[in-house]
Amino acid sequence: MQQHSASIAMATQPNASQPSYVIGVDIGGTKLRLALADISGTVLARWSASTVDIRNADKVVLLIAQGVDILLAEVNANRRTLRAIAAAAPGITDPDRGIVVATSYLMGWINVPLRALLEAELNIPAAIDNDVNLAALGEGRAGIAQGTPDFVFLAIGTGLGAGILLNNQIFRGHAFIAGEIGYILVPGVSEDPIPRGQPGALEQIIGGEGIKSQWQRHWNPSLTKLPLSAAPTEIFDEAITGDTLAQQVLVSTARALSYAIYNIALILNCPLFVFGGTVGLHPALIEATRHALQQRSVRVQPQLLPSALGSDAQLIGAIRLALDTANVSAPKP
Amino acid sequence: MQQHSASIAMATQPNASQPSYVIGVDIGGTKLRLALADISGTVLARWSASTVDIRNADKVVLLIAQGVDILLAEVNANRRTLRAIAAAAPGITDPDRGIVVATSYLMGWINVPLRALLEAELNIPAAIDNDVNLAALGEGRAGIAQGTPDFVFLAIGTGLGAGILLNNQIFRGHAFIAGEIGYILVPGVSEDPIPRGQPGALEQIIGGEGIKSQWQRHWNPSLTKLPLSAAPTEIFDEAITGDTLAQQVLVSTARALSYAIYNIALILNCPLFVFGGTVGLHPALIEATRHALQQRSVRVQPQLLPSALGSDAQLIGAIRLALDTANVSAPKP
Repeated sequence: MQQHSASIAMATQPNASQPSYVIGVDIGGTKLRLALADISGTVLARWSASTVDIRNADKVVLLIAQGVDILLAEVNANRRTLRAIAAAAPGITDPDRGIVVATSYLMGWINVPLRALLEAELNIPAAIDNDVNLAALGEGRAGIAQGTPDFVFLAIGTGLGAGILLNNQIFRGHAFIAGEIGYILVPGVSEDPIPRGQPGALEQIIGGEGIKSQWQRHWNPSLTKLPLSAAPTEIFDEAITGDTLAQQVLVSTARALSYAIYNIALILNCPLFVFGGTVGLHPALIEATRHALQQRSVRVQPQLLPSALGSDAQLIGAIRLALDTANVSAPKP
Repeated sequence: MQQHSASIAMATQPNASQPSYVIGVDIGGTKLRLALADISGTVLARWSASTVDIRNADKVVLLIAQGVDILLAEVNANRRTLRAIAAAAPGITDPDRGIVVATSYLMGWINVPLRALLEAELNIPAAIDNDVNLAALGEGRAGIAQGTPDFVFLAIGTGLGAGILLNNQIFRGHAFIAGEIGYILVPGVSEDPIPRGQPGALEQIIGGEGIKSQWQRHWNPSLTKLPLSAAPTEIFDEAITGDTLAQQVLVSTARALSYAIYNIALILNCPLFVFGGTVGLHPALIEATRHALQQRSVRVQPQLLPSALGSDAQLIGAIRLALDTANVSAPKP
């Protein structure tokens, strides 16, 4: 019993020898992921839950709080050991005001004050940012782009987006939508104006859905062993084996992507592009894009490298943002 | 005689009541321009000279020193009143090391230590930067872009280039060649690889020489009153009056330019593009580009405005850089 009382006292009155933690959150369209890390950024525990039927922001925040408590229990700690939390949200975020301005599909949030909701629920400093921006931050601080102050993270999954780090900081632009590269115009894309809410001209070719529609438009059983319903990663797998249609789709995707990279590299003069997302991580796409870029120019030759953190990039980025937030909020000695 | 001695004493031993000056220099392919300004940045005197037969950097520096002395004489001052000098150079510059890495046409400089040459000749702190970057700085500090921390300056003259200000600072990229937009690929440009030293795909359409070759390719006396040898600004003048071929060339130039602006705005999310250069300043081009951009998208609508400083932009930018240099170098009180 004596032992037990001592343990409760420790839990409610933290002292200097007690460890401190931060939480990183990745709010996906279908899945919520949390990770708890120590103040060196090392991940100690993870938790996830489905968000398929959850749209309401208050409910998402309650679910996050539930996950936080489960993670704390796993490391035998309590909420008083938490220094900060940071969340990666899909869509447009205003990190200065802590607001999710708009999410596209699935969540449908408009002007959700996510930072304030998290702070009210957990009583710790909170921060938010766009998920692709945080994936870039993760790669810059703890991934393949460490030591490269200026680089672009390409997120190629269902859609297409970019996170830009300049001088080791996330570059967001005046309305927080820098890196919206799905709309970029390169030779070969449709020049038709894009109705609001529709995928951009480049995304129509390079995003996962775009690759699928390229595939379906040209599908013919005489050209491929794969079915009409093949996924982009299956198409790229098959391209390596010499499948005619799969190779054609790989080459046309890589060419359009190399044009976009070329344009971005001309504007920003950045030496590195990090490929992320389920489609972007495919080695055949990276290799084919590298080849297309080499064909184009000897002058503009940024490195093209796969994400080191893979699907964890935005979660690790959220942890790094939480650590920054904890440091800013820490009382000065 | 008493008066004269006093005057010499003042000239060689400056005191607190004596005014201070800076010099801005614009090294063009055919013309050298200098301006002397007081420490508020107000231009008090100007001087220019031909550089047509001068390639050697030492000779250009001697010519600059000659101009400096003429300007100082105009305001009845001597070299001891000078606080700093800054020069805008055409081509790739490394402002950190003070080196002109390479100029394209005309000068043909390679790794010229221009800052050191100016400092050795004039015994004052010197700084250098690319001319388009300094034109952007001029517009940001003293022109149309004051109060807009992020914007792009488009220099459209014989060729095509951009200077980028982010957070009120020149953004140069890791090898000092950010903003090399003449090579950008948009729908309608040639996809052929560009041999080293040749104009980029976009510059082939939008630069002054590119507009001329569009014109000459389509020229036919049944379509226009203008001669085969018409200049871009004459073509744009005539487009306003309804000349068929002139209108076609204006529209195709504006469309390609609007695509490039759209791409840059997607990447940087910047709210303003400033049009400069002899071709870029033409009101018909700005208006037609604005129209093309409006047709393209309601979401991406940066402001397109003419340079306020016109052909003085890089010279005024050089003066601002000289003022910054003087402030950094000034002994702390």
